[in-house]
Order: sequence, then structure tokens, then C-alpha cells
Amino acid sequence: MISKSQIRYVKQLEMKKYRQREGAFVAEGPKVVGDLTRSGFQPLAIFATEEWDGPCDNRVSGDELRKLSFLQHPQQVLAVFPIPEADVPAEASGLCLALDGVQDPGNLGTIIRLADWFGIDHIFCSPDTADAWNPKVVQATMGSIARVGIVYTNLEQLIGNCRLPVYSTLLDGEDLYRQELSEEGIIVMGNEGNGISAPIRKLVNRKLLIPTFRTGDTAESLNVAIATAIVCAEFRRRSRP
Amino acid sequence: MISKSQIRYVKQLEMKKYRQREGAFVAEGPKVVGDLTRSGFQPLAIFATEEWDGPCDNRVSGDELRKLSFLQHPQQVLAVFPIPEADVPAEASGLCLALDGVQDPGNLGTIIRLADWFGIDHIFCSPDTADAWNPKVVQATMGSIARVGIVYTNLEQLIGNCRLPVYSTLLDGEDLYRQELSEEGIIVMGNEGNGISAPIRKLVNRKLLIPTFRTGDTAESLNVAIATAIVCAEFRRRSRP
Repeated sequence: MISKSQIRYVKQLEMKKYRQREGAFVAEGPKVVGDLTRSGFQPLAIFATEEWDGPCDNRVSGDELRKLSFLQHPQQVLAVFPIPEADVPAEASGLCLALDGVQDPGNLGTIIRLADWFGIDHIFCSPDTADAWNPKVVQATMGSIARVGIVYTNLEQLIGNCRLPVYSTLLDGEDLYRQELSEEGIIVMGNEGNGISAPIRKLVNRKLLIPTFRTGDTAESLNVAIATAIVCAEFRRRSRP
Repeated sequence: MISKSQIRYVKQLEMKKYRQREGAFVAEGPKVVGDLTRSGFQPLAIFATEEWDGPCDNRVSGDELRKLSFLQHPQQVLAVFPIPEADVPAEASGLCLALDGVQDPGNLGTIIRLADWFGIDHIFCSPDTADAWNPKVVQATMGSIARVGIVYTNLEQLIGNCRLPVYSTLLDGEDLYRQELSEEGIIVMGNEGNGISAPIRKLVNRKLLIPTFRTGDTAESLNVAIATAIVCAEFRRRSRP
């Protein structure tokens, strides 16, 4: 049995202001909930049907789960977790990503998922980037949000104070495949429509271009998650033993 | 001025059965409509506000455009185009993509956009792949649908009859970066949840794996559009002069 106040509590967490007030976010399905608990996230509440064989403090029916869920097809379990304290490293190190105004929750989730794949531990986000604890983002990460540290911060300050090379893909950049790439660095990716903001652009010291392979009329750009993937894959390919 | 029957006509084109009956699809915004007309698509109808400086047979107000539009923020122009006759090549040649049950319109649109970027002229789709003429797909291609040929066909037959190497990303594949890649080939990508279907899997003769760069617990997979991008980028990088 679930109460109306429980439904209200969960549903409100769709909105950023309530997530911030409660310090909590929602994750759904065995894969995402499982990855979070395995990574040490301690659930505040777990609502699950009988199919779910993990820990559960609120056994619910399929109908009840549908009332709580943000998914079109709810899957066994919905859990509420505390938003982790941002574990801000004193300085960026290794290979990391900085997102300057990425707006689409699907793009952000996909970027978190590929960062996990490519062993990138930190993503620094400008305050106007979509919120990583939005249920749509959490689900699009397919559990990777459990393993990648997301930090919302003043990017200008962070990048300005950082001694790593600062990369981005820009129209006046140099061919990604003919440029030297360092093992450590910050890769900055920008807003879907407008790219990276002027103050951040000034801090980019290694401009990359993903070459197109069509002659004549062509796509003007790639989706931001696609561009991020191609750049990250090339960095990792180069640094292989 | 627009009539109720015009609104109904446009709105129905959200559904595949009406698109098929009318042989028509909707595109919106200066970029997408412009790319289609530049590529030789002849509009059946153009609805545009005064901001639009292209050809227009139905001048509408912003409010009227909102009534027609499938977008949250309509942009100047909405046009109806005829769905082109599928220009089925007798045989697959060059580097092409085959999509076996890709379901998400955003993923399909993103794949069409990146195929354009990488100079891939043909995408062969199984009948259960999302419909490319869905307004969500058309918009996600950012105009690339004007330049990439999309063919819905029996993939088993097409691939079975084809003399090109057949590539796919599979969990038992070999490291993409250590495999020989041919200049011509079919790259098969599968459904978001289930991958490629059993009959198609049997036809794959070059199994690839995109290596992960995280040790320990990691993402189980990449989003299908991301995986497609990484594979296409690597094919094109290798075949550069």
C-alpha cells in the first residue's frame, strides 16, 4: 500500500526545486537502482513489486508502481536516493569533461553513460546545464550516474585555474585526427544550439574539428553527445598501450 | 489564414498510417525546410510567418503556426513534402548502415545526421525500425534526411545477397581498433534493448567490440547512436588518404 503523500513526495521529485529542497532523486528499474546500490548509494525509500528480489521497504502492486513512476513502462522498482555531496576535486586531473549549457536531458544522460564507458571520472557542468538528477537524465545514463562524478560549478573559474590543456570542438579547429592529444585534459562541450559561451571559448587552447567525410552540401554539425563520443574515443584510442 | 481542414491534414501526419495514405511528411524550421528544398524536395504546402523569406503559399500568424506545429517552439515555417520513392540500389555498395529495429525516433534522427556527416549515402532499415518520416525523426536529423537515402526493406534478404563484409558491434566481437576494416561494408546496428535479431546476427561476418576504458564495474553498453558514431568515425579515419 502506498499513501497519497508518498505519491506526492515521489512525483514532486520530477522538479529541480523539490529535488534540491529534499536533497533526493528518483531512479527506476533493476539496472539503474541496482547500479546505484552496488556503488554505495543508500536508498531513502524503495517501492517495488513482487518481481523485484532486492531489498524493499514498500511492497506495491503494478498499478501502484505506475502511479509513482515517470516511465511509460515501469519496471519492478522505483527508489529514492539522496543526491550525493558534490565531491569537488581541488583541481581537474586525468581526462575529464566540462559541459557548458547542455540543455537536453537525453543528451546529458547519454554523455554521462559514454563518460563511464571511456573511464572518465568527472564531468564539470555549468549551472545552466540540465540537472543530472532529473529522472529523465538518471534513466538515460542506464546506471552510469552511479560511477561518474557530476559537479555543478563556475566553469570559467575551474578552467581558468586549471593547468591541463583545454580542448573543444570548434568550426575553426584543427582536424582531430592530425592533432596531438594529451593523456590528461579537459574536453569542453557546449549548448545544442549555441555551442560554448564566449568567456569559456577564450579559455580553449586546443581547438579540434571532427572532419566531415561528405563533399558538397553536408550536415552543419553533429549532435553534442555524438561529438563528445567521437572525441573521447579518439583520446582513449591514442593513449592505449 | 488557415482552415480547420488544413490543421487536421497537418496534424494527422504525425501518424504513420496517415503519412503512408497521403505519401507526405512534415518538416519545420528554416534549416530543415531549407535543406530539403535545396536538395530538390518539392513542397506540397508551405505555412510560414512573415519572418520567413523563402517561398510560401500560406502566410500564417505565429498563433496559427503554433496550431500546426509539432514543436514546443515553432520556427517561422512548416512545410509538407512528399515522401520520396525509395531509391533502392540493386546492391549495397560503399559504406552503408543497416538498422535492425532501432525504436527511438531521437536515435534514428541522430543516426541519419551522423551518416550524412560521415558521407554514408544509404541506410537500410528493417520494417520494425522507427519511421524516418515521423516529425520527431525529421527534426532530429537537422536537415540531413534531405541527403541520406533511407530504404525500408527485408534486411535478411538484402544482407544475405550482398557481397560486402557485414560488420556489427557484439559483446563477443574483436577490438574495433585492432581489426582490419574494409573501405566498403555494411554496418548493422540493432534495437536499443535487444540488439540485432537472431537471423541477422548469423549474417554478420566481422564482429566488432568498442573497448571500454574503465576497469571494474562499468557501463554495460553504449547508446546505439553513440556506438554507430564511434564505428563510422573509425572506418572513415582508416580510409583517409
